[in-house]
Amino acid sequence: MSQKTFKITVEYDGTDFHGWQRQKRVPTVQAQIETALQTITGQSITVAGSGRTDAGVHALGQVASFTCETRLSDGALMNGLNALLPGSIVVKKCAEVEPTFHARYSAIGKTYRYCMLNRRLPSALDRRYVWHIARPLDRSAMRAALTLIVGTHDFSAFEASGSPRAHSRRTVVRAELRAEPNQLLVLEIEADGFLRHMVRNIVGTLVAVGLGKHPAGEFEAILQSKDRSRAGMTAPAQGLFLVSVRYRIDYQRPVRSP
Amino acid sequence: MSQKTFKITVEYDGTDFHGWQRQKRVPTVQAQIETALQTITGQSITVAGSGRTDAGVHALGQVASFTCETRLSDGALMNGLNALLPGSIVVKKCAEVEPTFHARYSAIGKTYRYCMLNRRLPSALDRRYVWHIARPLDRSAMRAALTLIVGTHDFSAFEASGSPRAHSRRTVVRAELRAEPNQLLVLEIEADGFLRHMVRNIVGTLVAVGLGKHPAGEFEAILQSKDRSRAGMTAPAQGLFLVSVRYRIDYQRPVRSP
Repeated sequence: MSQKTFKITVEYDGTDFHGWQRQKRVPTVQAQIETALQTITGQSITVAGSGRTDAGVHALGQVASFTCETRLSDGALMNGLNALLPGSIVVKKCAEVEPTFHARYSAIGKTYRYCMLNRRLPSALDRRYVWHIARPLDRSAMRAALTLIVGTHDFSAFEASGSPRAHSRRTVVRAELRAEPNQLLVLEIEADGFLRHMVRNIVGTLVAVGLGKHPAGEFEAILQSKDRSRAGMTAPAQGLFLVSVRYRIDYQRPVRSP
Repeated sequence: MSQKTFKITVEYDGTDFHGWQRQKRVPTVQAQIETALQTITGQSITVAGSGRTDAGVHALGQVASFTCETRLSDGALMNGLNALLPGSIVVKKCAEVEPTFHARYSAIGKTYRYCMLNRRLPSALDRRYVWHIARPLDRSAMRAALTLIVGTHDFSAFEASGSPRAHSRRTVVRAELRAEPNQLLVLEIEADGFLRHMVRNIVGTLVAVGLGKHPAGEFEAILQSKDRSRAGMTAPAQGLFLVSVRYRIDYQRPVRSP
């Protein structure tokens, strides 16, 4: 059997997991996938995610890669994984890729979505997937603040304190807030990369602007200050979704099996 | 303090409940609401639902009524309930009504919705709220069958076996199947009343038609046979939602507090 490298795209409900990354004694998405792969291949396989997601954060399109020895086609491997994984994790795509592909190191961009329910009453049915904010938000003020993060900036003010990063400059290529039915407010941010808690800290600060706790202009001052203590609270995990991970086009094309 | 009768409209996620109706030693929606009311009023109050919902069935607008002695306004009572209830139950409306109002006996109609996800892959995020059907469904055949249930019929063929009903005639005023984004198929049925498991048995039989297991014409023969053993399987509970309960207009108008 020959070594094969696979790229998988995974949807998961983060509610019942302690995040993506394997940890001792608590269920994580990575551990579930590795256990299923061990059952299928008999090998102990390490799965590399495009990045961690925190406890309670969901994914529509997390990407992961791994190398193993198998005769299975990508389709058979995907079916095997989905048969073994719990219903809260679904492998949506599986493709054999070049061995140089690595879900984390090959990534060139990501899109995150954050869902807020802005109405007096919470929702019994969507409570696992939104941040409920009962007081009305000023969407214009939030949109004005949001335009300030587009471009290349040092995002230290929105980075989890104590995060060990070589540098904190990231380029946000798109940031938009759209209103959906039933008072749902959806923020989508696309960037070349994200610092730890960056989206949740931006959302927390944006909501402070929307509630009138910060004047819209202060958002810019907070960003420029690079001072975490000036930004707002970290928005709760359950509203956050990793939507997709972007790679260079040449990695998108699966290799042919020999 | 005077006796007051209240009508409440309740949304709930049925996943973690053994249905609406109070039972010993298992969590139910009715028991949760009664416990919260006891905490608020100090009285042991029986809450009457418009009808039972089975274990795992959800509600967007279940209606219930109860009578108690309280000085609380309907708004204060609603806030108190929502503060005490788990996040999976939300009281959306609370109105003081005439003492003759009874959520079950005053009801003149109900609307149910059933959600099917018709695509190869299941959804990690919607799994608690849909029936996943991997093979493609013939929507035209399903719609043709569905028109046959509109009107007044004896629905015995779609009634749970052993149900103690005086009679099994019900009038379906609307039955439609609509396609929504992401291969979601939504069935909505409005009737003057429903027999036990009626919607889930109709859906199970309709899906058999959609999969080509029954010719569309057989749906009519099954309905006319009044024979439960001829209909299809009972569709799983998690796709079913009680959308709303209809009352005569004069009950919709809350009474004024003295």
